[in-house]
Amino acid sequence: MRGVVMYAPGDVRVVEREDPKIIEPTDAIIRITATCICGSDLWPYRGVEPVDHTLMGHEYVGVVEEIGAAVQTVSVGDFVVGSFAVSDNTCEICRAGYQSRCLHGSFVAGDIGTQAEKARIPYADGTLVATPGQPEMDLVPSLLAASDVLGTGWFAAVAAEAGPGKTVAVVGDGAVGLMGVLAAQQLGAERIIAMSRHADRQGWASQFGATDIVESRGDEGVAAIKELTGGLGAHSVIEAVGTEESMLQAIRSTRPGGHVGYVGVSHDGVTLHANQLFFAEVHLMGGPAPVRRFLPELIDLIWRREIDPGKVFDLTLPLDQAAEGYQAMHERRAIKTLLTL
Amino acid sequence: MRGVVMYAPGDVRVVEREDPKIIEPTDAIIRITATCICGSDLWPYRGVEPVDHTLMGHEYVGVVEEIGAAVQTVSVGDFVVGSFAVSDNTCEICRAGYQSRCLHGSFVAGDIGTQAEKARIPYADGTLVATPGQPEMDLVPSLLAASDVLGTGWFAAVAAEAGPGKTVAVVGDGAVGLMGVLAAQQLGAERIIAMSRHADRQGWASQFGATDIVESRGDEGVAAIKELTGGLGAHSVIEAVGTEESMLQAIRSTRPGGHVGYVGVSHDGVTLHANQLFFAEVHLMGGPAPVRRFLPELIDLIWRREIDPGKVFDLTLPLDQAAEGYQAMHERRAIKTLLTL
Repeated sequence: MRGVVMYAPGDVRVVEREDPKIIEPTDAIIRITATCICGSDLWPYRGVEPVDHTLMGHEYVGVVEEIGAAVQTVSVGDFVVGSFAVSDNTCEICRAGYQSRCLHGSFVAGDIGTQAEKARIPYADGTLVATPGQPEMDLVPSLLAASDVLGTGWFAAVAAEAGPGKTVAVVGDGAVGLMGVLAAQQLGAERIIAMSRHADRQGWASQFGATDIVESRGDEGVAAIKELTGGLGAHSVIEAVGTEESMLQAIRSTRPGGHVGYVGVSHDGVTLHANQLFFAEVHLMGGPAPVRRFLPELIDLIWRREIDPGKVFDLTLPLDQAAEGYQAMHERRAIKTLLTL
Repeated sequence: MRGVVMYAPGDVRVVEREDPKIIEPTDAIIRITATCICGSDLWPYRGVEPVDHTLMGHEYVGVVEEIGAAVQTVSVGDFVVGSFAVSDNTCEICRAGYQSRCLHGSFVAGDIGTQAEKARIPYADGTLVATPGQPEMDLVPSLLAASDVLGTGWFAAVAAEAGPGKTVAVVGDGAVGLMGVLAAQQLGAERIIAMSRHADRQGWASQFGATDIVESRGDEGVAAIKELTGGLGAHSVIEAVGTEESMLQAIRSTRPGGHVGYVGVSHDGVTLHANQLFFAEVHLMGGPAPVRRFLPELIDLIWRREIDPGKVFDLTLPLDQAAEGYQAMHERRAIKTLLTL
């Protein structure tokens, strides 16, 4: 089969890979219908994270082609959405809603590589969720978004306790930030402030539900959020970048007792001063999103056409042109690239 | 009046100070019945924080001697317990339960100095809570504890979401840690693991409700907590030290999705790696405790003799011997020193 391999920073190729096979009885093999490029795939692309002939891709929707003997909840022929985190969905941590930290879990990134024609998904019962039927084609991008970028933005909004009566600020105008805006709106937030200095992203944010835009950053950005919130700061802040600057922006934009949900992937060398945390006195929750917790609800919202997160894909290319998809995102010509098969 | 002044690290003196006077109509003057030395007072004593002729003390109980024209809820003659944080208790942040970050707030430490015969308390209505009557003398230490050390341990336990069915680990065997143990027990925790390597503190922890003791620290300490919790980590962890080591101990001892309540005062230079936070995936909440939120409930528990936090004072001295009180705590000969007037 064909699959995307990143040979080195900036060097993305579509090559022939061995077809995946069932290894464990809990595995499923899926034929991928659509996959995409994640903002986090840009870290190795830019040389910020190590990369060496790495199998790329961790977002996916597709049709089940084969199941192991122990798989019970998905069947051959089902259309499925999967999380980027493998989970058994039965351990105590999964049952508490933290499937991205499943005791038997792993990450699809690296090991599996879903920017490919097929993928082996471990713990299929715990990782995949079947849609109510075969989706109409125009729903596929939204279902694909649920696999990571929507699920992650949703988790951030939940972790930030976005909801009725709340003012939510969103730090980061990438795909995850935009999905955080959508999630905050769905969760009933009263006011949603998107922090963005790019006109096109501002437009997207407004489309997804932002009520206010703040262009400034740093001290000025914090001051702008305070001005919009009676001097107090936002109740809920979504952090969707993963740098020291963005974490501080989020923490400082939150009122005392408020909540920060952070999902920007942090890197070695990003440090926080305990002092600043201590005197900020805000709730912090974040990490790799337990997308599986939210999948049934998100699939239902998409199926009923209540939400249209698929709009976040502003570039669609065939898998063979993956390299151009990376390049476009790297140059910020595209927010997020969908790859078709 | 007499009051404690720290001239320089290690140099604590009881000197003649000017009597406090009403300045604002919301002030009250109280005659202090008992005060005490806080673990955080040891930071300047040890030269870790700057100090220069600083008025000491922020914990206090006493009798109202005079009130400003606007004071309504406390009267001359009332016995009152006050928080170490001044709060109006009416602003939006106070109403949300974060009185230690009141919009009009300040800290008693430094400006006021309650290791003295009298003190001026701003925002008396919002900072002080009157007891139901004049307390019996044996209740005074417990009421004094509510002013900070109990209130802080209680906040940590609440922030860590200690409660029925939960396993709570407590990092730090000082007075606040011990009060965290007491709070966790009162909040109905199923199991309380005190981390302590000192036999005497272990005894105290058991008295206050600890069900298990872990002596090891670092990797071994984390492993010990995991072993006691089916490999998962504690649901709730109270951090009551304020160093990088203790914060990491707390974070790493918490299961994914669990809660850390941190109240150890952090210092400049204590940093956390965002990476470790991200992949720990735990809730963090902490800072200066909004003691005022809990005072009515704590006073009630003490008044009904349901709890006896006053046991945490293992040394009682007259104010004039404050220097010895500091020295005893510095040398860990005493957990916490009560000063009588």
